[in-house]
Amino acid sequence: MRIVKDFLWKHGMTVGELVAKFGSLGFQAIELHEASEIILKMKKARAKIFLTFTSNMVTSGLRGFFAQLVKLGMADAIVTTSGSIEEDIMKFLGDNFEISNFNADDVQLHEKGENRIGNLLIRNESYMKFEDKMNECLNRIYEKKKRIDTSELLRELGLMFKDENSFLYQAAKNNIPVFCPGIADSAIGFHLFMFQQKHNDFIIDTIHDIKNAVLCSSHDEKKGLIALGGSISKHYAIFAGLLSGGFDYAVYLTTSHATSGSFSGATTNEAKSWGKIKDDAAAATVIGDVTITFPLVMIPVLEILKKEKLLKI
Amino acid sequence: MRIVKDFLWKHGMTVGELVAKFGSLGFQAIELHEASEIILKMKKARAKIFLTFTSNMVTSGLRGFFAQLVKLGMADAIVTTSGSIEEDIMKFLGDNFEISNFNADDVQLHEKGENRIGNLLIRNESYMKFEDKMNECLNRIYEKKKRIDTSELLRELGLMFKDENSFLYQAAKNNIPVFCPGIADSAIGFHLFMFQQKHNDFIIDTIHDIKNAVLCSSHDEKKGLIALGGSISKHYAIFAGLLSGGFDYAVYLTTSHATSGSFSGATTNEAKSWGKIKDDAAAATVIGDVTITFPLVMIPVLEILKKEKLLKI
Amino acid sequence: MRIVKDFLWKHGMTVGELVAKFGSLGFQAIELHEASEIILKMKKARAKIFLTFTSNMVTSGLRGFFAQLVKLGMADAIVTTSGSIEEDIMKFLGDNFEISNFNADDVQLHEKGENRIGNLLIRNESYMKFEDKMNECLNRIYEKKKRIDTSELLRELGLMFKDENSFLYQAAKNNIPVFCPGIADSAIGFHLFMFQQKHNDFIIDTIHDIKNAVLCSSHDEKKGLIALGGSISKHYAIFAGLLSGGFDYAVYLTTSHATSGSFSGATTNEAKSWGKIKDDAAAATVIGDVTITFPLVMIPVLEILKKEKLLKI
Amino acid sequence: MRIVKDFLWKHGMTVGELVAKFGSLGFQAIELHEASEIILKMKKARAKIFLTFTSNMVTSGLRGFFAQLVKLGMADAIVTTSGSIEEDIMKFLGDNFEISNFNADDVQLHEKGENRIGNLLIRNESYMKFEDKMNECLNRIYEKKKRIDTSELLRELGLMFKDENSFLYQAAKNNIPVFCPGIADSAIGFHLFMFQQKHNDFIIDTIHDIKNAVLCSSHDEKKGLIALGGSISKHYAIFAGLLSGGFDYAVYLTTSHATSGSFSGATTNEAKSWGKIKDDAAAATVIGDVTITFPLVMIPVLEILKKEKLLKI
Repeated sequence: MRIVKDFLWKHGMTVGELVAKFGSLGFQAIELHEASEIILKMKKARAKIFLTFTSNMVTSGLRGFFAQLVKLGMADAIVTTSGSIEEDIMKFLGDNFEISNFNADDVQLHEKGENRIGNLLIRNESYMKFEDKMNECLNRIYEKKKRIDTSELLRELGLMFKDENSFLYQAAKNNIPVFCPGIADSAIGFHLFMFQQKHNDFIIDTIHDIKNAVLCSSHDEKKGLIALGGSISKHYAIFAGLLSGGFDYAVYLTTSHATSGSFSGATTNEAKSWGKIKDDAAAATVIGDVTITFPLVMIPVLEILKKEKLLKI
Repeated sequence: MRIVKDFLWKHGMTVGELVAKFGSLGFQAIELHEASEIILKMKKARAKIFLTFTSNMVTSGLRGFFAQLVKLGMADAIVTTSGSIEEDIMKFLGDNFEISNFNADDVQLHEKGENRIGNLLIRNESYMKFEDKMNECLNRIYEKKKRIDTSELLRELGLMFKDENSFLYQAAKNNIPVFCPGIADSAIGFHLFMFQQKHNDFIIDTIHDIKNAVLCSSHDEKKGLIALGGSISKHYAIFAGLLSGGFDYAVYLTTSHATSGSFSGATTNEAKSWGKIKDDAAAATVIGDVTITFPLVMIPVLEILKKEKLLKI
Repeated sequence: MRIVKDFLWKHGMTVGELVAKFGSLGFQAIELHEASEIILKMKKARAKIFLTFTSNMVTSGLRGFFAQLVKLGMADAIVTTSGSIEEDIMKFLGDNFEISNFNADDVQLHEKGENRIGNLLIRNESYMKFEDKMNECLNRIYEKKKRIDTSELLRELGLMFKDENSFLYQAAKNNIPVFCPGIADSAIGFHLFMFQQKHNDFIIDTIHDIKNAVLCSSHDEKKGLIALGGSISKHYAIFAGLLSGGFDYAVYLTTSHATSGSFSGATTNEAKSWGKIKDDAAAATVIGDVTITFPLVMIPVLEILKKEKLLKI
Repeated sequence: MRIVKDFLWKHGMTVGELVAKFGSLGFQAIELHEASEIILKMKKARAKIFLTFTSNMVTSGLRGFFAQLVKLGMADAIVTTSGSIEEDIMKFLGDNFEISNFNADDVQLHEKGENRIGNLLIRNESYMKFEDKMNECLNRIYEKKKRIDTSELLRELGLMFKDENSFLYQAAKNNIPVFCPGIADSAIGFHLFMFQQKHNDFIIDTIHDIKNAVLCSSHDEKKGLIALGGSISKHYAIFAGLLSGGFDYAVYLTTSHATSGSFSGATTNEAKSWGKIKDDAAAATVIGDVTITFPLVMIPVLEILKKEKLLKI
């Protein structure tokens, strides 16, 4: 029987110590502690880990953390949305995203050429620089290959951006596939389209890429899922895992609730009815903003793995 | 100055009468009434209307309503996710989705071959029948065309399913494009992949389809957006509209909140900073489950348009 | 086995017809339909019905609906928060609440003497008029009784306000107790305090009022709960019901979720662990804004009861 | 101009270091960092600090943290709900609350005499022991005073429970008032009622207690508010602050959203329209479960104050 313990601050408390206390604190703190334990377990069991995130998380500073996690061997496959690709590259190109607030005057921002995502801003110039860069990159890729799987394209792009904090770069460097089934969306989709208008035989084969998604894990291997937010990135990872027999470990961090039947709010329990997650899998769902919960979930795992010399670097 | 009025029930009240009273009732009722008025305005202004929805809404009975709206001329383009395609077809094939509850025993459901989506269930057999049907359909489509835009594929599929309540069928019959940028995801993605394994020259060109998305409206035309839920379907519609100068009218119905910077919770105000929605556009966001809010928003519009003989049928 | 049915609009659809279709539509629509059925059952079983709501719902136009429901015999006890009392009286005094928007400029509103509640406004003058009126009312009540139970006080106040749309008036007129355990809060609390400063023997006995709350139903009677939102009003009703053996029927309409362990998000299931709701009770929770969901839940009940001549008037 | 910075884990990271990085991370992490800075400012400005919380937070291990904060001089007044009182005392009496899960079988729990609050459990025995203790305590208090303000009663109770982790004890010991305007609710309300049945002259004067609430700060002093969750506790603190001229600093931590007009979701901006928070006040709202966010917000403050020798102990 686990019991609630009175939480007390101790001078100099580390993140690892705080999350350890979360385990006997209550409500979502308990779930967060559980999620952290499950990720530790999946790593120790040498499970293939699928990490999924949406583009707003790349807009935020989590972009660097995703890159670091890949470098440290904490992800074996990444699934994300199209916006993530462009914003990872924008930051490589030296652009900064500004901190604003949720109640900013949007008409005024529009006049100033600033585009708001929650309390963050991306300037129009960032999109222009990205466009120029993409043109150049696509030309080089096209010379090598006309019909290309999405994850191959992203690998080629990643190899062009030597930035330690770029998840595309770290994934390419470490031979980790990045999947983006919805690449036709957003600015990157538009630039691919413009390029194709000039080169009709240039094909992004999102369908053929399913082979790579399925083959990056096998029925025999343990499989783990860390899904941040909802969207096609979460669904595609689950779909890939399902084709390989379902996940043995799953952690969902989300702000969505199960009550509307939306996929972003679908629980790990619901996933069991599908066989997406195995009946006896270790699974946890943490409700809260991932800019807060994800570092908290991961840091204790990294501390322990480092101590036990189980991190890649 | 608009004021709050005491709400009173009147015997035999119609949905139109209820929503009219919502306009002076408070909180989300006011926003819902506003959303309804904006849709009426966009239709009367002969705006091109983009309707977006996610697959869980097709799992629900809204599938028939989407088909009806297309038939009545209330949508000029549809954007949705891959799951919507398969579930629309499953229902055409005669399958029923069962009503269960949010707290069902998922391990037990898994054993019975029932897959849960919130409080609804889809049986494994439905997926098997769908697989058989898809094989047959894809063969016929492949004979006509090897490299095909996603919306062309969906049009071909729609023409094969004579079901008044199928949104794919109604869209195809009424020459309304259905976009699905993330078609590589889910069961339909898998069947496309299996088919491609046998026919390597079969290509779903999600990139080339952007042309159709852009061309289905023009800079000169008024454009309206009705976005149900979030996800790639909402984003792709906005992206297409942005390329044609931004929307003049926009209604978002969602359960997500703006506070996590997620796109599903992004407000119509935030969209103005991007030019996705014009600075002076008429726009409203209604927080609530679309199975409740969408019929309420649309029915008063349909009643008025019918009276004024502005519905297609 | 209940199945999902394709929803179709029918010209002239009544609210009753819409909610009937909700029963086979999906997600929260199904829960809303269930809630409506349960309220019909509790009324037909002649259960004692506790209706609870928070003050923001009185700010909205639901105030008139609450009064109408009392008049029609749909509530046997009301539990609410202190703000509800003052706003019910302000409306009796002829004041109007203005419709504004959720993003109004609050500093500017403050300068204009307008106080915002979501997208609604209450002017400072309304509070001043209320203060004058309260002084007069309390003098009259004090002459009759020095130490008074809260529900007695509210009954005396209700008898002073002949307004068909006032829930205090309708409750007093129909001998329905109104409980307000947190009356010391808010403007009414302040006016009671100021009056007591002049009359030290004036006592509002919130503790003694528990007798009235317990005695308004008995162990032998069926008991039903309709709880709108959370807060002390929901908890006090459940506490009173628990002392009489627990509820046989319960409907919660709320925007809060269970995940934070808050009472406003606590489900009807959780209530069963306490015996607050009986193990075999009919119970439903609907997630959504009550300005939308409450009229939808109640109207079909009223239509049927009217038809079967079971409404009080 | 503040910009987003790529977040990177550093071995041995303290909570203070993590929250410092939150300031350039994004979305709610930025708001959390801001909230932490504001609490530091309010303390350095020697503001009178009102801390409010709901009973579920006392059920959780935050109870010990609340006590510690009082001991360290971080709160000058506490406002809470009735359940907090009984659960603080139950823990003093040696009872443990068990950790369960959100999907527990509630009917089974009921049979076992276990009452669920989210993922936590309180046993029936805990309530029985509490009842016995209360009887004894109330007898002693009654001998000293027949008519008593609520905060006086809670001070007397606090003095009887020598438990370092009890917030009632620490508040009493440190001369910090604890307000509970809704004391008539819940188990403690019932025990007060039973005692009054035997001693008719025993009066809990919730109205007279407003004097203590108003006098615990003055117009001339700076005032700060830390409101955890919503409910009457948050509202009463604001009401008391408003009577003394409004707050200069305010931090809200909540899971509720502004969209339904509920008070628990009301923002610090909305409060400015009322003068509850001054127009130029430093204010922040953090959306998330307080078991996670509150320790994160407070720990960096405590670390800095300790370093600067500004903590009481």
